[in-house]
Amino acid sequence: MEAAPNASNFLQRHQDYLGEFVYGGIDGSVTTFAVVAGSVGAGLDSSVILILGFANLLADGFSMSVGAYLSAKSEAHNYNKHKNVEYWEIENMPEEEREEVREIYRQKGFEGPLLEQVVDILTTDKDRWVDVMMKEELFMMEQRRSPLAIGAVTYVAFILVGFIPLALYLYDYFFPFAGDLFWTTCALTCLGFATVGGLKSYVTETSIWKGVLETLALGALAAGVAYLVGDVLERIIVG
Amino acid sequence: MEAAPNASNFLQRHQDYLGEFVYGGIDGSVTTFAVVAGSVGAGLDSSVILILGFANLLADGFSMSVGAYLSAKSEAHNYNKHKNVEYWEIENMPEEEREEVREIYRQKGFEGPLLEQVVDILTTDKDRWVDVMMKEELFMMEQRRSPLAIGAVTYVAFILVGFIPLALYLYDYFFPFAGDLFWTTCALTCLGFATVGGLKSYVTETSIWKGVLETLALGALAAGVAYLVGDVLERIIVG
Repeated sequence: MEAAPNASNFLQRHQDYLGEFVYGGIDGSVTTFAVVAGSVGAGLDSSVILILGFANLLADGFSMSVGAYLSAKSEAHNYNKHKNVEYWEIENMPEEEREEVREIYRQKGFEGPLLEQVVDILTTDKDRWVDVMMKEELFMMEQRRSPLAIGAVTYVAFILVGFIPLALYLYDYFFPFAGDLFWTTCALTCLGFATVGGLKSYVTETSIWKGVLETLALGALAAGVAYLVGDVLERIIVG
Repeated sequence: MEAAPNASNFLQRHQDYLGEFVYGGIDGSVTTFAVVAGSVGAGLDSSVILILGFANLLADGFSMSVGAYLSAKSEAHNYNKHKNVEYWEIENMPEEEREEVREIYRQKGFEGPLLEQVVDILTTDKDRWVDVMMKEELFMMEQRRSPLAIGAVTYVAFILVGFIPLALYLYDYFFPFAGDLFWTTCALTCLGFATVGGLKSYVTETSIWKGVLETLALGALAAGVAYLVGDVLERIIVG
């Protein structure tokens, strides 16, 4: 497989954050579609859909994006905590830490006097020494993505894709819609799922069809659950 | 700061997945609390809360955990894709790749004949060579956490913590509750947020108060948004 340096367009440059876009987008539309499907399953009024759909869209979008931001910040914090531990260990038990470096480079194929020279050089500079320990002992990599950007991308995707299941109900509130509101909304939402899934596959250079079908199946199953729960609970509680 | 090897209890051993637990738990309770707060803000019946609350809990929990699973799987896929590119480059343009290893180890403080010896050994074995490129050129680390476990932890946390805002309404359905349903639910939900936030801080060894307040503020703001949107839209739509 080969990298495609010429395809370094907008999507390629932003693929670091594409996971968040896909994740946030799917969650947004499932959240609002769950309100739509649950309400329709339970035979509730479409004013309920608009009220609770938007309440959920804004509250959940806020919560998910701030959650993603905090989670990324906490990961960075955790990295720094372990880094400080390594600095402490190098300061207070240098021989044990030297032996760890020795073992790591022994496994890379070094031995004898060359191994000792390599260990000497790597342990001369404390920053480089800690860098070896972080990557090779703890398998930890510094997060190079911005927690703020992670939160922002999640928010935009959530609101944007999450608006789709509500769009027709909002339109219908102002200009009565001639077709079947629920099934047209289902079709629009499927289109949204498929677009997000396809986008993901395009950028990660995997099979477009697999991405589209995977996302569609996920969304359809989640929506089906919401419809069924709404329908069954309506019979039990109201019916 | 010092590691606490003796505190390697259940929580410590599972802290790899704690981010998912906190993230899933908060999102679960915000989702259901948004239904509660939005419905109360809009003056809707508590049967709506039960129906749409559970529809949202199950559908969104499903979507979020499958989303987390797919996202982790896609990350692993992306890692392997880049790894294959590195194997291809080593095979087809070994001199450029040797020069990259040379540059990486020059920056670690190696020079002259020792640098050449180090490069020779690191590039003898293709797996080790690719390992250097992945960590030091691409800054990519193999995901050592199971995508399935990530999905499962997210699901359990979402359902468990997300059930809290619905618990009292469910109880009230069977045995009429004497107190104020909404405000008691608010208190219970706050307790849930605080517990999750505190748990996170305890395991990541950060300030408990900061963790509790951060999570509480996030949850309260999200819930406030849901209540306000429900209230405002109810006035506009239902009048």
